[in-house]
Amino acid sequence: MFAPLQNDTFLRACLRQATAHTPIWLMRQAGRYLPEYRDTRAKAGSFMGLATHVDYATEVTLQPLDRYPLDAAILFSDILTVPDAMGLGLSFALGEGPKFAKHVRDEAAVAQLAVPDMNKLRYVFDAVTSIRKALNGRVPLIGFSGSPWTLACYMVEGGGSDDYRQVKTLMYSRPDLMHRILAINADAVALYLNTQIEAGAQAVMIFDSWGGVLADGMFQQFSLAYTRRVLSQLKRSQDGSVVPRIVFTKGGGLWLTEMADLDCDVLGVDWTVNLGQARALVGGEVGGSGKALQGNLDPNSLFAPQEALCAEARRVLDSFGQPHTDASTRGPTHIFNLGHGISQFTPPEHVAALVEAVHAHSKMLRNSQS
Amino acid sequence: MFAPLQNDTFLRACLRQATAHTPIWLMRQAGRYLPEYRDTRAKAGSFMGLATHVDYATEVTLQPLDRYPLDAAILFSDILTVPDAMGLGLSFALGEGPKFAKHVRDEAAVAQLAVPDMNKLRYVFDAVTSIRKALNGRVPLIGFSGSPWTLACYMVEGGGSDDYRQVKTLMYSRPDLMHRILAINADAVALYLNTQIEAGAQAVMIFDSWGGVLADGMFQQFSLAYTRRVLSQLKRSQDGSVVPRIVFTKGGGLWLTEMADLDCDVLGVDWTVNLGQARALVGGEVGGSGKALQGNLDPNSLFAPQEALCAEARRVLDSFGQPHTDASTRGPTHIFNLGHGISQFTPPEHVAALVEAVHAHSKMLRNSQS
Repeated sequence: MFAPLQNDTFLRACLRQATAHTPIWLMRQAGRYLPEYRDTRAKAGSFMGLATHVDYATEVTLQPLDRYPLDAAILFSDILTVPDAMGLGLSFALGEGPKFAKHVRDEAAVAQLAVPDMNKLRYVFDAVTSIRKALNGRVPLIGFSGSPWTLACYMVEGGGSDDYRQVKTLMYSRPDLMHRILAINADAVALYLNTQIEAGAQAVMIFDSWGGVLADGMFQQFSLAYTRRVLSQLKRSQDGSVVPRIVFTKGGGLWLTEMADLDCDVLGVDWTVNLGQARALVGGEVGGSGKALQGNLDPNSLFAPQEALCAEARRVLDSFGQPHTDASTRGPTHIFNLGHGISQFTPPEHVAALVEAVHAHSKMLRNSQS
Repeated sequence: MFAPLQNDTFLRACLRQATAHTPIWLMRQAGRYLPEYRDTRAKAGSFMGLATHVDYATEVTLQPLDRYPLDAAILFSDILTVPDAMGLGLSFALGEGPKFAKHVRDEAAVAQLAVPDMNKLRYVFDAVTSIRKALNGRVPLIGFSGSPWTLACYMVEGGGSDDYRQVKTLMYSRPDLMHRILAINADAVALYLNTQIEAGAQAVMIFDSWGGVLADGMFQQFSLAYTRRVLSQLKRSQDGSVVPRIVFTKGGGLWLTEMADLDCDVLGVDWTVNLGQARALVGGEVGGSGKALQGNLDPNSLFAPQEALCAEARRVLDSFGQPHTDASTRGPTHIFNLGHGISQFTPPEHVAALVEAVHAHSKMLRNSQS
């Protein structure tokens, strides 16, 4: 059904297999920093107009790949499609963040929640298939979802938040209701990701963007436990290929060892984490098991002159150290990324310099040891 | 000059000396959640009208102590007094955060920066002396300042920020300019804190509120190094009493071991940190050296019903474990606090329940082991 994959560097690195260079992709790589994205968005009329239109979603997903030799594509979509399909009424006011028409803060609202009919999310799965076809095997396609906790933050707050007061008030006051929301979210996310896998996603990523706002102890109960519940329901493979799973908790560096036993392949980390230390904690040994690591350049370093930016990129690669190079076994691997989504103000030519620097320096690292 | 101290629990805990209960105070304890604070602020006309008026600043500093048996008072002031005294023109628009009339983003602006004349900050030191007198020995008075990095964030951004794009652009592009700003800030902060100590502050706290937004590697160079530079210049004692130093880096839990060798007495931590793990890393042993720990209840837990709130407070105390109780030596101690400033929406009666729970449970913890 789909063309054979030409560049499997990213998938190999996810599975802790040796690669000739360190693969790179960037969170939010299809986005406002690209003039061609802004053109397509203008045609679509709105952000959701873009995300719900299969041709537009396909077009913008491929735009960064036409500019840069990135090693993976990621579905262009929004993190809040699932609660929207639950009937909460997602909208984006111009220049503002997402808003829900309804929020979920009491027993009655929780009682109405259910895993949504996946037909309401058909536009997402159609986009996955369309993008996968359009990629024509150039690089693998990553599907994604927000984590159960991160979705719950938006659902309870009714939009973005500075202080997470509403969602934490519910969590501390009515943990029973919070657990019900999270259980429904987890089952919805698992079904959503499995349907993306069936539609053509070759890897999946769970964005726990707000896990890091939780107190120690609460993170484990209200975020990690439900990420685990998602993972336990995910398909392991599709059409004979393993589908790697990535879990990214922004601000979760302190809980890495507790994430080490998640049934996933890759842990994403933000820029506060030292990759060398993370590798020592969860990266495993050559021939043993462990997690691949994804990250973690500060997106703001893309505002530096190219020379300084490339020095920062090399520093990130060096902090991970030499990935294993033994093709006969698995071992520690690194997938280069930012520690958060790319800024809309990023100069596009700096991204070109970054991708080139990561490819060149990571090849050199491997050659210097062989 | 000042009345003798009646409750030295907080100062003893700072210095890792045994206490009969775990002392508690709350960041931003004099603030908008108290109706009497809102009354005084209305009289003062504005936030800076309050902070610059010695009698008003004294009044609001003492308000929470009249309600709750807290173990320390903290100077009521703003974190941005020092850059204001540097001539940047601080203002607060109604309902918005702080704004500077000038920002510091280029060589010319940096060239104009200097350690300000402390006479411009006389209102702060007068407030310290006035508060210390008004306290009349009830509890110790804590002075404070923003860290060099945190002040620099506001100075370069020109106010608050979501993404720290301007300050990080400068840091990654012109590290030389950033280092000059930070060196000036460090010397200014040291002078500012020493003058607070001379005016009557019995402990000092450095708020590195934005240290946690830095990448690993950058935090050490651009925040920690300048906190160290402040500490190296601080007075160790005043009028024969040791003046403890507290360093609080929000989001700094990953760097605790690197903060262990700071020349300070207490490390403050936010709610993402497990106090038991932090104690194992930096708390030291009985009879040995180490840091006292301050924190770390999630301020949002104050929105829970009192029973759940008190359970959370006990959980925080239990996570630290039994403080040492040997009066003849030093050992691990805990100062109870929030992991960040108290929310303006907090019900005041919940604070009363929290203080009582911390005092009661921490006494019980000690008695259960003796």
